[in-house]
Amino acid sequence: MKIALDAMGGDFAPQAAVDGAVLAAEKLAGKAQIVLIGQEEAVRPLLEAYGDAAASLELVNATQIIQMGEHPAKAYQQKQDSSIAVGYRMLHAGEVEAFCSAGNTGAMLVGAMFSVKPVPGVLRPAIANFVPKEHGGFGIMLDVGANAECKPEMLEQFGELGSLYAQYVLGIEKPTVGLMNLGEEEGKGTTLTQQAHQLLKVNPHIHFIGNIEGRDLFNDKADVIVCDGFTGNVVLKMAESIYDLLAARNMHDPFFDKFNYESVGGSPILGINDNAIIGHGVSTPLAISNMLLQGYQMAHSGIAEQIKSTFKS
Amino acid sequence: MKIALDAMGGDFAPQAAVDGAVLAAEKLAGKAQIVLIGQEEAVRPLLEAYGDAAASLELVNATQIIQMGEHPAKAYQQKQDSSIAVGYRMLHAGEVEAFCSAGNTGAMLVGAMFSVKPVPGVLRPAIANFVPKEHGGFGIMLDVGANAECKPEMLEQFGELGSLYAQYVLGIEKPTVGLMNLGEEEGKGTTLTQQAHQLLKVNPHIHFIGNIEGRDLFNDKADVIVCDGFTGNVVLKMAESIYDLLAARNMHDPFFDKFNYESVGGSPILGINDNAIIGHGVSTPLAISNMLLQGYQMAHSGIAEQIKSTFKS
Repeated sequence: MKIALDAMGGDFAPQAAVDGAVLAAEKLAGKAQIVLIGQEEAVRPLLEAYGDAAASLELVNATQIIQMGEHPAKAYQQKQDSSIAVGYRMLHAGEVEAFCSAGNTGAMLVGAMFSVKPVPGVLRPAIANFVPKEHGGFGIMLDVGANAECKPEMLEQFGELGSLYAQYVLGIEKPTVGLMNLGEEEGKGTTLTQQAHQLLKVNPHIHFIGNIEGRDLFNDKADVIVCDGFTGNVVLKMAESIYDLLAARNMHDPFFDKFNYESVGGSPILGINDNAIIGHGVSTPLAISNMLLQGYQMAHSGIAEQIKSTFKS
Repeated sequence: MKIALDAMGGDFAPQAAVDGAVLAAEKLAGKAQIVLIGQEEAVRPLLEAYGDAAASLELVNATQIIQMGEHPAKAYQQKQDSSIAVGYRMLHAGEVEAFCSAGNTGAMLVGAMFSVKPVPGVLRPAIANFVPKEHGGFGIMLDVGANAECKPEMLEQFGELGSLYAQYVLGIEKPTVGLMNLGEEEGKGTTLTQQAHQLLKVNPHIHFIGNIEGRDLFNDKADVIVCDGFTGNVVLKMAESIYDLLAARNMHDPFFDKFNYESVGGSPILGINDNAIIGHGVSTPLAISNMLLQGYQMAHSGIAEQIKSTFKS
């Protein structure tokens, strides 16, 4: 199995990408091979500096780079030899089984939508994020930014997509699904959450436990937290800032340390035909390495196939 | 000046209400008198137990109680001699200058809308909440739950209402206003935030600094954080849970301790003709006391008059 990494993506690329790939290669030895995609003249010397430790890494040349500030759709179309475009082509062609990048988030989404494409039946793919749970493990929250505006049917599907991920990748047997809302009672919330509640309630493929509130994010009520991409994005960035504020005060604890984005490394795009993961722009080698391990877990679990067969029916 | 307190509101009423009132009375001696509103036979003995310490407290009898689980509008209409209904009548009649309650939030909003009423020109009053800032002091976020669904013009007014509060009550000379969004760029977000951005940008009464993100809640970018009541409610409850999780781990710090709702005690309803504050259901005596002090500060600052004169023009 091959897992691809955008060697040019992220603020500290290509060095952090190569460092992270070497870290992950050690852990994935015998299970998967890592393929770096990027400018050969920039990446090759970094690999050579590692000597034998980087021997298992493959390098695919991609001459262009989509910068962080570029317009995603325009850049993706114009830079067909960028590391992101080449990565998605390889993913779509089945040459690799997952593609990870800490580069331009928008371009990663564009590639997901126009190269590997949404699974037939999925209205809109979503970006998922991991939520540390106070009694251990992680839950999953989606959408966290792919869809600022949502329809009730989209939220219903997010519940299904998140459940499949929780079951097949996180190994949670009967994942519970909660709808983020401003009150627990069924009639609470916006038109969107009221209507989504009714759809989720009768969906036979999930274990819907009803509305949850902001205070339930980290408790055990819901393994899968469904919300629109606007709310999810605000919550995600707020959680990241909490970690930074704690770290700046040297306040550490096993639970709060899991708020650190490095511990999971990236956010999967769910509802597309292949496995793609978006990393944080400031990704460190540890974050890159964990993103690659997550890519392996996704590919190994067959989650994309599970989603396809669920939505086909 | 008289500040009224619902003696029957909150999970630990009337004891916590009386305890909190006695605490506040000491601090407000010579400045304001506290008026307790509630069932005389239940409250009188508690006051008597305090002896001289409670001598300055006035007690107004109200025979009924709106319970936490009751339907707000129905209960408010049917229980005209409830502590909440009596409190709003006294507020509207000018017999007290602020009314505080840790009771049924919905009933407090109903009273605000139908008894003291919105200021002419204000589309929808909002509930505001205080946000601790990492470099000291507090910002203000609104709406946090009165309006799950908002129109752009409402968000614009929240910016104005919050600015007036920040200026006249918090003493921030030129409060900055930020719009909660999922990206900093002007075009980001939902139709709501995109349109609200355009209105806020040209509003001459505020100092709009543009979009902010979830990670900016606690930094110094914006003194006033504008959002719809759905987003604000999720953020507020999430912040409260963060404090609880830290406290459970005995992790304390001057900044994070300000996440404790007790430190401010309540959330003002802004955009109505008088001063009303809603406290947390679990309010402790300290929270009640701080809610009363905030009620005094609001009344002392003349914020309601400032809002009236701003929206008249």
